[in-house]
Amino acid sequence: MSTGGDSARAHSVAAPVRAGILVTGTEVLTGIISDRNGPWLSERLVELGVDAAMIQIVGDRPDDLMAALRFMADAGVALIVTSGGLGPTADDLTAEIVGQFAGREMVLDAELEEQIAEILRPLMSRWPGLDAEAIRSANRKQAVVPQGATVLDPVGTAPGLVVPPSDGARPTVVVLPGPPRELHEMWEKAVHTDAFQHAIAGATVYRWGIVRLYGIPESEIANTLRAAADASVPLASLEITTCLRRGEIEVATRYEASAEPAYAAFLDFLAERHRDQLFSRDGSTVDEQVASLLNGSAWTVAAAESCTAGLMSARLTELAGSSAYFLGGLVVYSNEAKVSLAGVGPELIERFGAVSSEVAEALAIGAALRLGADFGIGITGIAGPGGGTEEKPVGTVCFSVASRDEARLTRRLRLPGSRSDIRDRSTTVAMHLLRRVLVGDVAAAPSSSVRDLRTEQA
Amino acid sequence: MSTGGDSARAHSVAAPVRAGILVTGTEVLTGIISDRNGPWLSERLVELGVDAAMIQIVGDRPDDLMAALRFMADAGVALIVTSGGLGPTADDLTAEIVGQFAGREMVLDAELEEQIAEILRPLMSRWPGLDAEAIRSANRKQAVVPQGATVLDPVGTAPGLVVPPSDGARPTVVVLPGPPRELHEMWEKAVHTDAFQHAIAGATVYRWGIVRLYGIPESEIANTLRAAADASVPLASLEITTCLRRGEIEVATRYEASAEPAYAAFLDFLAERHRDQLFSRDGSTVDEQVASLLNGSAWTVAAAESCTAGLMSARLTELAGSSAYFLGGLVVYSNEAKVSLAGVGPELIERFGAVSSEVAEALAIGAALRLGADFGIGITGIAGPGGGTEEKPVGTVCFSVASRDEARLTRRLRLPGSRSDIRDRSTTVAMHLLRRVLVGDVAAAPSSSVRDLRTEQA
Repeated sequence: MSTGGDSARAHSVAAPVRAGILVTGTEVLTGIISDRNGPWLSERLVELGVDAAMIQIVGDRPDDLMAALRFMADAGVALIVTSGGLGPTADDLTAEIVGQFAGREMVLDAELEEQIAEILRPLMSRWPGLDAEAIRSANRKQAVVPQGATVLDPVGTAPGLVVPPSDGARPTVVVLPGPPRELHEMWEKAVHTDAFQHAIAGATVYRWGIVRLYGIPESEIANTLRAAADASVPLASLEITTCLRRGEIEVATRYEASAEPAYAAFLDFLAERHRDQLFSRDGSTVDEQVASLLNGSAWTVAAAESCTAGLMSARLTELAGSSAYFLGGLVVYSNEAKVSLAGVGPELIERFGAVSSEVAEALAIGAALRLGADFGIGITGIAGPGGGTEEKPVGTVCFSVASRDEARLTRRLRLPGSRSDIRDRSTTVAMHLLRRVLVGDVAAAPSSSVRDLRTEQA
Repeated sequence: MSTGGDSARAHSVAAPVRAGILVTGTEVLTGIISDRNGPWLSERLVELGVDAAMIQIVGDRPDDLMAALRFMADAGVALIVTSGGLGPTADDLTAEIVGQFAGREMVLDAELEEQIAEILRPLMSRWPGLDAEAIRSANRKQAVVPQGATVLDPVGTAPGLVVPPSDGARPTVVVLPGPPRELHEMWEKAVHTDAFQHAIAGATVYRWGIVRLYGIPESEIANTLRAAADASVPLASLEITTCLRRGEIEVATRYEASAEPAYAAFLDFLAERHRDQLFSRDGSTVDEQVASLLNGSAWTVAAAESCTAGLMSARLTELAGSSAYFLGGLVVYSNEAKVSLAGVGPELIERFGAVSSEVAEALAIGAALRLGADFGIGITGIAGPGGGTEEKPVGTVCFSVASRDEARLTRRLRLPGSRSDIRDRSTTVAMHLLRRVLVGDVAAAPSSSVRDLRTEQA
């Protein structure tokens, strides 16, 4: 739930240029795949100072497509961005419907037809079994565009379009392909067209501040905003949105240049009140911070994981360049593997159980030793749905970060959620523990800032 | 892009009951988090024989919420399901706007107020720093509901609602909380209310068939559908949607009971034409098939991964019960780790390079040996963005599945996409190779069915 980003405050900042996002495709609508284009486009629009007023997902029915375009026009948006429906099959209708909506005739663009044919040539030679005539006719369909539209060169095989209305009254429509990679690349081209810039003329240029906190519940931020208002921090010129993401709280603030001092005051208030929890003042993620701490040192890390079974190693290598500091990991699912690979003493498992702080510490030390790393991360827990006991219910996870000699920071938590929630959240906890060890503030930080996760809700 | 699921065909099946899904929240709209509720609700509705006609995402502005509800009513939906906006803060407006939309007065439900207070009591004692008065007033706000609505007991702290229209002309609105776990649990309660069942009365009960193919491009399915029509397979009574998901093609078919023979004929046609690629006729995923093959045997597996860095082990343990057959894994990011942990001969790395079929085979055998597993999976590749060469460009990944004695199936592919695409897609390739070895059909299958991935687009 967002906090403070309500409409009254938003409007007091300015009357922003609004846009609508229309995602098409039965497979998106029916939940077979989940849409990533809507949120991505929304973020890009916001960066341009354009408010995404709505995202609408409809199937491949012409009536629904047209109704959605008209609804957005009625809502007063200056721009509509569509994704999908540019393919070669009969149910790919977006270009045609948008042409109708904009009051523009559909015409064959011969140059474009040749350009698409050129793109398809190597593809056709690699798939000798394909039906060449079907492909040629599909090619032609993709080259039929609304007259007067700006054509965006294909990234895959489908061209994009920027379609201004024929009468100037309706919104301009930007037509982009559905595959995210194609959409991302084509978006840049679309933004730089005259038709696009004309449509968003007058958009306020905003600044953005993003900070991240770890170790408090989201509800506490609502209290902090109230307290800031009571302390006369000038919040009225800031549009603040908070969100819980992978166990962290992200506070995003949008403001005009003139509100820079207000944002600085808000940031100071936040930093003062949540000293131990505010880990990022520049929007950097814990992953980026860990990467930067490791890149800035000669330290290396390794992991030994049970319940997360490789997710921690995978997360540590998500960023390119991680091979400079990540040496490797041990996935020790069975007790035998914990002993033989990570060197955990069988008597520890016997005495404390495989899910215990003691075994987590032995895993962390074992990872550092076996991989020859400066630091090891150990994770062992019960991801469920089975395997829980009264003493160690599902969600119990033990973590440790160690050097080759000794455990440096160890925690036992109970995490909420499903098997996959618990596994994912565990990697967030481990990243924060690693960050703390790397920053060297283990002694200074109170343990409660980690223990708080116990009651956190996803 | 969907294929064949166009409107004309859908309508020829029946005139289905339609529903709209309204997802609220500025943080979803601005792309800070991506919506998972829309697709989930859409799948549930479809299972009930209700067509999700649209998913709309709007921010926390009252006007936008109301406009979206009215738009859906105008589109003729019988049911609207909302997610989000039930929290305690001022911008959580859904209940109130839905009350207005349904023409119902808002009233305080005293019993519900007490129920929410009861839920909050332990939370308040665990977080002694919280502002008790603020919480009590938030609690009261959540207990104010439209008169005549069916209240759904809170799963978290927010109650849900089923709100029939006061005049019978507009759609019934189901109001659910935003956190996915709460929404999922409350959905079941909502479906069983009289008001819900009344709203969807007359929904056609459909059957579903889902099959999966691996190793052909999606465009080939369009050709197959044309060929099926040419061969007089009765497609008119089937609503077929295809979608590319993690490198596999999913073909989902919805049909009425009377079209069962048509579906059987279609399935036979598909199986005949794509004998080597159709790996699932019952909708099971490759992960489920691998799990079932391993559960049905006494075999155990282990992995040694470089570029995927733990993702393969993590994927093999996504399903509960995997500890019965998955022993562990080695994440061998550095060359030293490949040698010391997985026992890869340094001369192999020297001679063929770390990314080579030879090293993939040594990793697979090493994983099996070191973990004492029956089968080992080896993966080594260049996930990028750096590190590519002319001979081994970014996306080059080598795979092997081996017993402790010998490599059983080895492939070198070039996968498209970003670093994260390449890592994820690599696990799909490895799952299919493992499945083939487990099924024992290595000799029978042509290598092209794997090589085809080279040109695949995400």
